[in-house]
Amino acid sequence: MIDDFQALLASIRSVDMGLTTAIQAHLDDLTKPKGSLGRLEEIAMKYALARGTATPSLNKKKVFCFAGDHGVAAEGVSAYPAEVTPQMVYNMLAGGAAINVLSRHAGADLTVVDMGVAHEFAPHPSLRIEKVRKGTSNIAEGPAMSVDEVLQAIMAGARLAREAHAEGYDLIATGEMGIANTTPATALYASMLGLPVELITGRGTGIDDEAMLRKVGVIKRSLEVNAKNLASPLEQLAALGGFEIAGICGLVLGGASVGLPVVVDGFISSAGAVAAMKLSCKVSDYLFFSHLSNEQGHQTIMNRLGARPILDLDLRLGEGTGAALAMQVIEAAVRTYNEMATFSSASVSRS
Amino acid sequence: MIDDFQALLASIRSVDMGLTTAIQAHLDDLTKPKGSLGRLEEIAMKYALARGTATPSLNKKKVFCFAGDHGVAAEGVSAYPAEVTPQMVYNMLAGGAAINVLSRHAGADLTVVDMGVAHEFAPHPSLRIEKVRKGTSNIAEGPAMSVDEVLQAIMAGARLAREAHAEGYDLIATGEMGIANTTPATALYASMLGLPVELITGRGTGIDDEAMLRKVGVIKRSLEVNAKNLASPLEQLAALGGFEIAGICGLVLGGASVGLPVVVDGFISSAGAVAAMKLSCKVSDYLFFSHLSNEQGHQTIMNRLGARPILDLDLRLGEGTGAALAMQVIEAAVRTYNEMATFSSASVSRS
Repeated sequence: MIDDFQALLASIRSVDMGLTTAIQAHLDDLTKPKGSLGRLEEIAMKYALARGTATPSLNKKKVFCFAGDHGVAAEGVSAYPAEVTPQMVYNMLAGGAAINVLSRHAGADLTVVDMGVAHEFAPHPSLRIEKVRKGTSNIAEGPAMSVDEVLQAIMAGARLAREAHAEGYDLIATGEMGIANTTPATALYASMLGLPVELITGRGTGIDDEAMLRKVGVIKRSLEVNAKNLASPLEQLAALGGFEIAGICGLVLGGASVGLPVVVDGFISSAGAVAAMKLSCKVSDYLFFSHLSNEQGHQTIMNRLGARPILDLDLRLGEGTGAALAMQVIEAAVRTYNEMATFSSASVSRS
Repeated sequence: MIDDFQALLASIRSVDMGLTTAIQAHLDDLTKPKGSLGRLEEIAMKYALARGTATPSLNKKKVFCFAGDHGVAAEGVSAYPAEVTPQMVYNMLAGGAAINVLSRHAGADLTVVDMGVAHEFAPHPSLRIEKVRKGTSNIAEGPAMSVDEVLQAIMAGARLAREAHAEGYDLIATGEMGIANTTPATALYASMLGLPVELITGRGTGIDDEAMLRKVGVIKRSLEVNAKNLASPLEQLAALGGFEIAGICGLVLGGASVGLPVVVDGFISSAGAVAAMKLSCKVSDYLFFSHLSNEQGHQTIMNRLGARPILDLDLRLGEGTGAALAMQVIEAAVRTYNEMATFSSASVSRS
């Protein structure tokens, strides 16, 4: 397992910046004032570089919604009971969740990935079962996962990205479902980015003041009890993360390894992306941060990363909802790049 | 003409706020934590109120790109020569402009409206000819239009909105093309919102420092020479506006008059919307400001209006590009409202 993981990291290459000149020349030949499409031009540039070509296409899109349960839910850190994780998975399989609607709207396929839900699901065409275990251990008492388990989860995510690439997908996105998962995500940010727990702990799906204070305490305790398990990014992810967060980390690494750009959803997904960035400094070339979450702390985290998310719609739902919305903007950027007339072809005067 | 205009204003009604309870109850019954879809929920609420129903549909969409020329272009306030206005209209009719790509991407129809281009176009299925005159007079020397002309332009825009409503469109958007039109738009903002010219004058399609200083001087001069023509919003629009800006104003008024929401593009379109808001305080219930333009001053103007645009993508192109992108977000909001499962139907536990 560790050999496969090392090979995965070794296969991630920086994008070819030599393509920048050709891509910029094409952007500047489109019938618009230079730079007037703003971030659409930046996005088209980044997408083309990630695909390794000045003539990229963008057709097939897919959202992966990773689901997992969390031992730390027993600490009362969420507004919802843990049984909502499988209930929401069933809702997604039935097509009724927000991510179903927004994936359809974006023209993206959706696969729900059971990374570690505390429930046995029957096979379903939209469900991929990569269950590592029925929920993590309680991070307030010790490591969430063993290193073997976290590697299993990462490699499952990476395999999904590589399969998507082989199936001709051009853009993939992360999403997640897991009651209590803002708690491990916050613990991970505190550990990986050195941010104060109080500054980045939010109300998740909507906890009250009492639960919020309890959540801060639980996160601090998880950092203390796991203090000896945080020597490397892999150990941090194992000790403080979750199966779905590790799956997201793997999807990012796998996407980067095959030049398939990954759209990162909000607060939880960004934690998986940060873990991937800590494991390989080259993955950021392949990442689009989709939206600024309304979850307390996400702005601080994005600032720390120097990232400017594409959308700011006060979302705090997860599932991949912000990523699905941002996919449409990315597609808009690539379509303007590919479909607009050039000054010479359209007989429009330059400035 | 003035009677038709007064009748148009009189026909605009406030939305029925009594529907708020039913709409909010439905939003809160969807399978997500309350409020977790953030601005999508606000947008769904606003759209439903504008349509006057708790069960709104959103299928047919159309972008109107209003084109016009400006006498003030002779002052050297734009990076492009005036002949680019008809050239870009031809580019749009051929399908090669950014707005063509982004309308297609949004699934919206596109009509280009010749409100006053200094060129004779042959008939074309995507072109609507409502030409008032071949370009406005130079605002630095006197009024851009007579009051009769501005009324003609407004009523043409209103007629387009009402026709779209009769044809079953659910959402319409504004856009524009007109070399030099940031100059009249800025003069209008200064006059209508009392904002300092220096604070809101930007570089448009990309003028240099010298042209920028000239532009500020031209705008100040236009306010001085027209000082006696600015007693009412209608006179302000006639003296300082443009045919396409008046057409946008009319589209907004016409949309509001039939409960058809209007998505407002960027810096220029917002000037038409502000004129409409000055003419009728009720139109804002029907308006979506689509994006924060990268044009200097738009943030100040949005703040003054208390508006928070949906997107912030550093666009400064116009044409309706930001509005077309925002249409997809509005449609996403309405689709989640209409297509998500409810807690009771999906057997998901509430918090």
